[in-house]
Amino acid sequence: MTVKVVIAGPRGRMGTEAVQMVANESNFDLVACIDRKIEDAKIRNYPALSDLKVPVFEDPEECFHTVEADVFIDLTVPDACFVHATMALQNKIRTVIGTSGLTNNQIEELTITAKNNQTGCIIAPNFAIGAVLMMLFAKMAANYFPDVEIIEKHHDQKLDAPSGTAVKTLELIKENRQPKTQGHPNEEETMQGARGATDEGIHIHSVRLPGLVAHQEVIFGGSGQTLSIKHDSIDRKSFMSGIKFAVEKVMEIDDLVYGLENILDN
Amino acid sequence: MTVKVVIAGPRGRMGTEAVQMVANESNFDLVACIDRKIEDAKIRNYPALSDLKVPVFEDPEECFHTVEADVFIDLTVPDACFVHATMALQNKIRTVIGTSGLTNNQIEELTITAKNNQTGCIIAPNFAIGAVLMMLFAKMAANYFPDVEIIEKHHDQKLDAPSGTAVKTLELIKENRQPKTQGHPNEEETMQGARGATDEGIHIHSVRLPGLVAHQEVIFGGSGQTLSIKHDSIDRKSFMSGIKFAVEKVMEIDDLVYGLENILDN
Amino acid sequence: MTVKVVIAGPRGRMGTEAVQMVANESNFDLVACIDRKIEDAKIRNYPALSDLKVPVFEDPEECFHTVEADVFIDLTVPDACFVHATMALQNKIRTVIGTSGLTNNQIEELTITAKNNQTGCIIAPNFAIGAVLMMLFAKMAANYFPDVEIIEKHHDQKLDAPSGTAVKTLELIKENRQPKTQGHPNEEETMQGARGATDEGIHIHSVRLPGLVAHQEVIFGGSGQTLSIKHDSIDRKSFMSGIKFAVEKVMEIDDLVYGLENILDN
Amino acid sequence: MTVKVVIAGPRGRMGTEAVQMVANESNFDLVACIDRKIEDAKIRNYPALSDLKVPVFEDPEECFHTVEADVFIDLTVPDACFVHATMALQNKIRTVIGTSGLTNNQIEELTITAKNNQTGCIIAPNFAIGAVLMMLFAKMAANYFPDVEIIEKHHDQKLDAPSGTAVKTLELIKENRQPKTQGHPNEEETMQGARGATDEGIHIHSVRLPGLVAHQEVIFGGSGQTLSIKHDSIDRKSFMSGIKFAVEKVMEIDDLVYGLENILDN
Repeated sequence: MTVKVVIAGPRGRMGTEAVQMVANESNFDLVACIDRKIEDAKIRNYPALSDLKVPVFEDPEECFHTVEADVFIDLTVPDACFVHATMALQNKIRTVIGTSGLTNNQIEELTITAKNNQTGCIIAPNFAIGAVLMMLFAKMAANYFPDVEIIEKHHDQKLDAPSGTAVKTLELIKENRQPKTQGHPNEEETMQGARGATDEGIHIHSVRLPGLVAHQEVIFGGSGQTLSIKHDSIDRKSFMSGIKFAVEKVMEIDDLVYGLENILDN
Repeated sequence: MTVKVVIAGPRGRMGTEAVQMVANESNFDLVACIDRKIEDAKIRNYPALSDLKVPVFEDPEECFHTVEADVFIDLTVPDACFVHATMALQNKIRTVIGTSGLTNNQIEELTITAKNNQTGCIIAPNFAIGAVLMMLFAKMAANYFPDVEIIEKHHDQKLDAPSGTAVKTLELIKENRQPKTQGHPNEEETMQGARGATDEGIHIHSVRLPGLVAHQEVIFGGSGQTLSIKHDSIDRKSFMSGIKFAVEKVMEIDDLVYGLENILDN
Repeated sequence: MTVKVVIAGPRGRMGTEAVQMVANESNFDLVACIDRKIEDAKIRNYPALSDLKVPVFEDPEECFHTVEADVFIDLTVPDACFVHATMALQNKIRTVIGTSGLTNNQIEELTITAKNNQTGCIIAPNFAIGAVLMMLFAKMAANYFPDVEIIEKHHDQKLDAPSGTAVKTLELIKENRQPKTQGHPNEEETMQGARGATDEGIHIHSVRLPGLVAHQEVIFGGSGQTLSIKHDSIDRKSFMSGIKFAVEKVMEIDDLVYGLENILDN
Repeated sequence: MTVKVVIAGPRGRMGTEAVQMVANESNFDLVACIDRKIEDAKIRNYPALSDLKVPVFEDPEECFHTVEADVFIDLTVPDACFVHATMALQNKIRTVIGTSGLTNNQIEELTITAKNNQTGCIIAPNFAIGAVLMMLFAKMAANYFPDVEIIEKHHDQKLDAPSGTAVKTLELIKENRQPKTQGHPNEEETMQGARGATDEGIHIHSVRLPGLVAHQEVIFGGSGQTLSIKHDSIDRKSFMSGIKFAVEKVMEIDDLVYGLENILDN
């Protein structure tokens, strides 16, 4: 079976990749785009989209009425995304949301809309499938290894430390681990900060260097052994693996799921 | 609750560690040892066992009749192990087998004995819990990443390449992956062997160097990303983590399970 | 002092990066380009070069006579490069050659031309400064650690295995190491190729996966320790570090040097 | 030529390894030991030393007068070491000091004694040859890559963070690098300590986990590339590589050298 796909936001960085990804998958078929700020003529001037052979709608309502679609992918901004997704679900079109920044209220309303229309929806902001697996494996390993540290490495233009992925990993590990102090009880930092940031005894270290992109390693230690789970992302193409997976999975569900980690098969 | 433990093979390399491990766990209690070739007096001359405060039996039957035990741990040799384990199960003592090399016939018979006596038994030859998790995670990741290579590294006195763990990992990955050729279709080795060993398109590389102990990394590659799962074992103490886990788990089952990977919680 | 630079091949992949690199360095100044196949008007239509404010010459002779330059960088093809470089040196303009594939004869003639004109020339084909350091360090470490293996990892569209960098590293290590068999004398491959390719006892392993770019690790093993030297290149921008270094170094020499490793300061 | 060696401190942890190392090297020959607190009979009861076929002296003066020796290795404690080394040098026996903790005064006096007697002496406290190379390479690479971070990992019983090796590496890098702030100028720690300890803009991160021994990685970043130098030490046998190297090198010098990094060949 071929999955008929509509993409909103085809000119954005993620949208451009998504158009490409759908084109490359033999069992996906792009049937329309939604682009609210540009007429059909202009969008084809974008080099990456010049081959776009599908109608581009400014009005999402018109799109969902006109086109027969299986899955709607939104890669825009939160408020537009909320409007688009609501309409899609009301039209019984399954929805994959890659846009990040929806409010809790918006997520709750979409959850209700999905349920009322018995139409699947997956919210999976910005995660490569490998990053999702890393987080899932880290959570699982925490059942067996209470001693764990996280090292995340990013390019030196990143503003925040630690990264959002590191914080999310931390939260997942904490679900399966009792708080405990790690290291020697009398451990001392002769240079402040050497032991990194700490939460419930878990240490996090953030490296920033030119030549890096986005990398994270979670290291568990036990007597005589260590177990390390590492994800390296060097290109935003990696995010497409999560979108692709979500498109496949959304076909199998009829309510809203938040987070790819909740739809992974073990 | 304290788990009362009997250990067979307390003078062996694994057995010595197991005695130590049981002594260090507050909820385990060593109640007897079985040692078929040495009288009680001599065993206490072994430096590592000089503090052994428990009876040492030459006759396993006598041991299982005399001592009240919850779990029997066998760390001996296959034939002795088979005799010991059969007796333990017949006496309704749950059994953890760390001995490797049991024949398929012996495993089948033990399976029947465990079932008939509704007594749990776990066969978990030689694996650190971290190695078991590495293999489990690798199997899971193969669902999402068909491109994978294994690099295993061991000390330079190892005779076989690839390692048993690498071969077992390979088997588990193959359960979740369709055979496919990896790399460029026209790829060429200008030096023979550069691309390693291959099975169903999965490449395996074996590194042997002094200064290494036992290490393995499974690397999955997808568009723009890689996911790596790595286990480093530097001491046979690491095997005790698997034995300890098995002792806890065997209390919850009433038949035979082969392989720790089958009793891990997700 | 500002170094006045002429670049040949500004539209190529390397040339485009070189134009950018020179623009970003405060002590380098681009004064002209040489482009043999395109008129001045067209070159500015290339998006990456639209800001080019310097004259573009089709005739290198005219360029070197007209423009006052300190260093000429060639990033073209071997035969054009040989002609350009000969002219530059005859005009006493120091020359950095990033083009790969010059014949031994061409290199010999350029060596003579450089010497006769007492004008520095550096031939440094395609190497990031980090890769050059990796090779230099590997050669040095081989003095102390005779046991060494190389693992190189590249994207899965690469045709040859092992990589050119791995082969060059091997050659450099062999200069400082006596041939010897590594691993256990009775070592056996139960899967053919597991131990990789071998030259004088050094093992090389080539990994090919999507999501990788160009990576190499050289691992030395000794009793109780390993020393690893690793280079990761994720972007051809990395090659510019070598070109930049060569431009600085060529100002200090008055003959031809082949290979960046020969002009690194210890 | 065979180097005749005397070892002081043969029962210590390092001394035991040194006795073993000398026994394994075909061109080294153990000719005597110095042990100030135990008579000859008792030393042979130590399992590791039961094969010791050489005289054991309590009086170092008597040892150096009686025995013909080329190199004296001291692996004791600072004050005894100072006495031993002074006597050895006065007797024109070249000296390798693996003992750490000599005061600056003691080092100065030994420097003078070595010079006056034109007898080589190397002070090389506690470093594996691989660790020395790592530090040397890091210092060299700092010439080309101003952006660098250090990650050191140790077992979780270590008291101080960062490790002494990390601090020494930092000092060496600073010799070849101008102070500069790394990372984005507006970088913010949302969890305190995430970016590690900092000195002159270089960040250091200390990981402590069971299952680790002593590991350090120095990572240099540049545009599109990273260069990493990593040392893993899993056994104090690794220190013997430094002692062995020092024994060989001390034969070629006739004054005192502090630090193995100063006698490495490039």
